[in-house]
Amino acid sequence: MNASLEILASMLPKDVDAALIISNENRRYFTQFVSSLGYLLLTKEEAYLFVDSRYSEAAAAGARGCVTVPFRKLSADMGEILKRHDIRSVMLEGSAFTLNNAAETDKILSEYGARSIHSDELDKLITKLRITKTSSEVDKIIRAQRITEQALTETLKLVREGVTEREITLELEYKMRRLGADGVSFDLIVIAGEKTSMPHGTPGNNKIKPGDFITFDVGALCEGYHSDMTRTYALGYVGDKQKRVYDTVYKAQKIGLDALKSGAVCKEVDKTVRDFIYQAGFEGCFEHSTGHGVGLEIHEQPALSPNCDTILQGGMVVTVEPGIYIPGEFGVRIEDTVVVTADGCINLAVLPKELIIL
Amino acid sequence: MNASLEILASMLPKDVDAALIISNENRRYFTQFVSSLGYLLLTKEEAYLFVDSRYSEAAAAGARGCVTVPFRKLSADMGEILKRHDIRSVMLEGSAFTLNNAAETDKILSEYGARSIHSDELDKLITKLRITKTSSEVDKIIRAQRITEQALTETLKLVREGVTEREITLELEYKMRRLGADGVSFDLIVIAGEKTSMPHGTPGNNKIKPGDFITFDVGALCEGYHSDMTRTYALGYVGDKQKRVYDTVYKAQKIGLDALKSGAVCKEVDKTVRDFIYQAGFEGCFEHSTGHGVGLEIHEQPALSPNCDTILQGGMVVTVEPGIYIPGEFGVRIEDTVVVTADGCINLAVLPKELIIL
Repeated sequence: MNASLEILASMLPKDVDAALIISNENRRYFTQFVSSLGYLLLTKEEAYLFVDSRYSEAAAAGARGCVTVPFRKLSADMGEILKRHDIRSVMLEGSAFTLNNAAETDKILSEYGARSIHSDELDKLITKLRITKTSSEVDKIIRAQRITEQALTETLKLVREGVTEREITLELEYKMRRLGADGVSFDLIVIAGEKTSMPHGTPGNNKIKPGDFITFDVGALCEGYHSDMTRTYALGYVGDKQKRVYDTVYKAQKIGLDALKSGAVCKEVDKTVRDFIYQAGFEGCFEHSTGHGVGLEIHEQPALSPNCDTILQGGMVVTVEPGIYIPGEFGVRIEDTVVVTADGCINLAVLPKELIIL
Repeated sequence: MNASLEILASMLPKDVDAALIISNENRRYFTQFVSSLGYLLLTKEEAYLFVDSRYSEAAAAGARGCVTVPFRKLSADMGEILKRHDIRSVMLEGSAFTLNNAAETDKILSEYGARSIHSDELDKLITKLRITKTSSEVDKIIRAQRITEQALTETLKLVREGVTEREITLELEYKMRRLGADGVSFDLIVIAGEKTSMPHGTPGNNKIKPGDFITFDVGALCEGYHSDMTRTYALGYVGDKQKRVYDTVYKAQKIGLDALKSGAVCKEVDKTVRDFIYQAGFEGCFEHSTGHGVGLEIHEQPALSPNCDTILQGGMVVTVEPGIYIPGEFGVRIEDTVVVTADGCINLAVLPKELIIL
């Protein structure tokens, strides 16, 4: 077993003999092997990765810390291992098993005298590991971030009156891929004008016009790791209200970054940012969370949200992304992704955040 | 309720009061509304779509055949509806609820005196509806197919010695998007040379060279619907063995298409194609299924596979995609997507299938 699997094995409750992991992210996290299907069975002595014929050769060469078992009939091949280790209880990954998957698996387990444990306990144990990032994980997020920033910088040259949100989005994504990204972190958000008042607007065919804010919420994917950044630009000119809102979000974001350090409580960081925005006269205009963890998933633990009691630790990677959204008018959001440290944070984003008028 | 929801409501077992649907595809199928989160509760009298604040406005305007309920706290808002219709039993979508989702939902249901049914029965009922396509669904698949073919035709001009699989893939995807696709149907497969012996190879940085086969397994996404097509081309020249394998796959694919019609049994279509390939001397070189259904998902029912007893009906949309894969040498696959009719099928692909040497 490798270190991460050994730690997880040691965390399993005494009365649990094994854990069964099926999500793509967690299989990848523990074995470094990428596949669209597979079963990682972790016993207290050994880890087994069951893959079908498509992956058997690649898994044998590339999966780390586990024994690869190519299966034809999962029940027979897994049964063999269950017997070998005298497994009587298996904890399922409750966030990944569907009811149908679980029913099939339970059938196999009961055939070999093992009971199945349905709960979110395994997820919680895995979160404890994944919530802080190794330097190798941070390196991948940084690579994704650099690609995002370079692609965005190049794409900004295309922003002019009459260009559509959709055209810009497509060019941005294309540039990220050309720069080596494996894909995008999420469906990129490039929205302009009144649409910027929607935190999750979708790029459409409306044309950008002078006086518009243009929100870019963008990120690239590198070796499974995500980057996440938001910048709001303006085209041509901005009005006083736009300036005031931008300035408030800009300050709020700085306040959020300043509040981060090992030992700070997530919901208090959120409250600090939220109070500032509300007290500036924008109560009701900032409904989403202040930030979220980023890694193998675009949204993971911890959440910088009003109900997250998690205490920040060094090595956590989180976004700080306050926004102000005024329905029927416009919205502004500014977002960086940072690594929490003992006394602050390291900002992975380098693109300027002062208001830029294109 | 709209027609599809009424039919599903009428299919629910007598002792089941309601169904709860959460997959993006099925919510979209029944309500035409696209969102990344939502709960569609179908009672025998009415359907309710619960969405969070992000979607409340859009759902009220765009969701068809159901009452939109924006929720702040799902338990309270869903509880209200459970009480209103005196719901005592709710069947969950077993292929979409994770164990964790189900545990949360069961808590809400039991709070309001309703029991939760965990099974794959609801999935089976929905499959009965989705397995045949309406003309409006076929139209979207055709649109995706036309975009795929146009993009592929344009991309072929870029194929020459020294270009990498990855470069071609990126250009192809970019062209699809420029032509109006919402995205790709799946991670496009563009592989060359020895890699073509892997049915699910991933595009990499290896360069195409004369004598290579190049397999394009590609498809676009339009309004939620997928297209799926495979063509195998050669660069420069081909050897005798390559010609013989290509010819065998070409004939096998035609045999598969000829075997399709309403009333044919899926596994028999598969057997006809498989027997032909095996008898031509390629036993063991064709391990995957002959085809699969295509629609809101890239792989759906029915399967043209050795263990699928489904009887084809007019309006089913399936792929026919035999291949021959010779480890360490090369592989060939040819795939069309077709609509089954009373006496045959309508091929949605128009690109030629004779061996083309680029």
